[in-house]
Amino acid sequence: MSEIRKHYFLDEYCIIATERSKRPSDFVSKKLEKSSVTDCVFCAGNEGKTPPATAVYKKGDILKDTKKELVEGWEVRCIPNLYPAVSNEFAKPVLSGWEVQEGFGFHEVIVESPTHGRTLSSFSDNEIELLMQVYRDRLYYYHSKKNIQYVSLFKNWGECAGASLEHIHSQLIALPILPPVLKREQAAIHAVDGCPYCHMIEKETKSERMVRENKDFVAIAPYASRYPFEVWILPKHHVNHLTNCTAEMLRSLGEMIRFVLLKYEDLLGFPSYNYMFYGIFGDDSYHLNMRCHPILSTPAGFEKNTDIYINTVTPEDAALYLKFE
Amino acid sequence: MSEIRKHYFLDEYCIIATERSKRPSDFVSKKLEKSSVTDCVFCAGNEGKTPPATAVYKKGDILKDTKKELVEGWEVRCIPNLYPAVSNEFAKPVLSGWEVQEGFGFHEVIVESPTHGRTLSSFSDNEIELLMQVYRDRLYYYHSKKNIQYVSLFKNWGECAGASLEHIHSQLIALPILPPVLKREQAAIHAVDGCPYCHMIEKETKSERMVRENKDFVAIAPYASRYPFEVWILPKHHVNHLTNCTAEMLRSLGEMIRFVLLKYEDLLGFPSYNYMFYGIFGDDSYHLNMRCHPILSTPAGFEKNTDIYINTVTPEDAALYLKFE
Repeated sequence: MSEIRKHYFLDEYCIIATERSKRPSDFVSKKLEKSSVTDCVFCAGNEGKTPPATAVYKKGDILKDTKKELVEGWEVRCIPNLYPAVSNEFAKPVLSGWEVQEGFGFHEVIVESPTHGRTLSSFSDNEIELLMQVYRDRLYYYHSKKNIQYVSLFKNWGECAGASLEHIHSQLIALPILPPVLKREQAAIHAVDGCPYCHMIEKETKSERMVRENKDFVAIAPYASRYPFEVWILPKHHVNHLTNCTAEMLRSLGEMIRFVLLKYEDLLGFPSYNYMFYGIFGDDSYHLNMRCHPILSTPAGFEKNTDIYINTVTPEDAALYLKFE
Repeated sequence: MSEIRKHYFLDEYCIIATERSKRPSDFVSKKLEKSSVTDCVFCAGNEGKTPPATAVYKKGDILKDTKKELVEGWEVRCIPNLYPAVSNEFAKPVLSGWEVQEGFGFHEVIVESPTHGRTLSSFSDNEIELLMQVYRDRLYYYHSKKNIQYVSLFKNWGECAGASLEHIHSQLIALPILPPVLKREQAAIHAVDGCPYCHMIEKETKSERMVRENKDFVAIAPYASRYPFEVWILPKHHVNHLTNCTAEMLRSLGEMIRFVLLKYEDLLGFPSYNYMFYGIFGDDSYHLNMRCHPILSTPAGFEKNTDIYINTVTPEDAALYLKFE
């Protein structure tokens, strides 16, 4: 079962997804599954242990598994999540008098390397560029589907960041709604002249919060950073969505992401981290951005109560540490 | 330093609080401080190791520490947080061209028992009733201060819930702004006829999401629960804020909170949890509510990207487990 339920009277949603249904006692101890190459379902050689791949990247080709044949020798492999948050196969929700829609959508895992133990920071130029192309392709693919309003693309790395498997992967969840948080951002952008992100980039690249720039992207420690060492990566010239980035831009983007992750490792000793892409498909006024932060603190009662985050590191200090090459 | 910084162009805030300033290497390993009675600063006998108490509850009296004399033999002790997120003693913020206000406010720790190792679930009727009175008093005290718009009262219990000390305590942060998340809720309430919480209570107490009621309060597993086993506790009759609860209501509230925490222990094996109070002081249209959830999952990239939470336990199942006495 998966349902997208709306708050009693606010524009807030949650997804009730019981595919990985649990009884209370199943929650008692919860650890990252440590796995070896032999039992890791994401490793090369174990393709049969996952649902058939929806896209397999191999030597410049984009292939697909068939029931008869699973593609081997791949570089990146996109597979349906075995425990999807949303799906196109769930039954209609039970009506309760409160607002609900069926948990329609797609939930995909992007296995970023066939090899266990790899980290994104160790990717070669070609590897990271390919991954950015996969990101772009998969976003485009799901945005082309009927009734999809938003595709969330994110990476959870490490146990503290919510990852349940250690083999390197990203995830993508395609939703039938534009999340209210993005609707609010969109409304704020539409309410002003010019792009507020472009304005921000112009000012911040001259500020002490500037971390680094390369050919097409800048990395900034944002003024109101919610998390210690939070970094935003944005295209220098206005582009609304990852699907509108050229191959050259994707190369720059990959290089910048790798730089930031390498700095996190240097400074913070292989921390867990999340990164997420923000874009609004079909709305040219939006400005693509990617946000990245190591998991160094636990948002708790105060953050839940107020949605105001307490951050113990100024972005000015964070930028100082991060920009030093 | 503490600054309340506003997002570049959205109604979003964070608090940059560097009182507990850290270098990157300080983040590398982070664990709950295990302490014994001798070195725990919250334990009876160690009063001198904290700032002087702002309020001390002892045998029906409310006292205060003085420079000369620290109150001993207390039941509940309220002290300024040694590493405050906000304070009335910080310097004015440095201007940067982006919106900021000084991190003015008050950050207090409510030490709920003189004895190390106590849990709220083991509190006697008198102990839990006293604690609710302290909550009410302290909220009223800080709301009476000049320039305070919101007082966040919350409890982080256990390492996974963001607690940094194991001795039982709650916290209170008094802010010079009403958090945008509450402003939005207030606007939604003002936009409709009648109280949407009263309407919800009327429907949900007859639903399968009803957990329990006592004299003055109900406990409900909310329809769009963001977290597994999330519970909302609300007064049955409309009251806008904890400061407007009678002594009798406080007794009911304490009893209900203890019931929920006991059920969490039974079902989930002493999980970490957060609980938070929601109320808008001076706005009679708001309906006091308290939200409680055990920490059983890690909000990650998807939740951060969309503000939509994936929950693997239906509130109907949660209520079924929780209501069974």
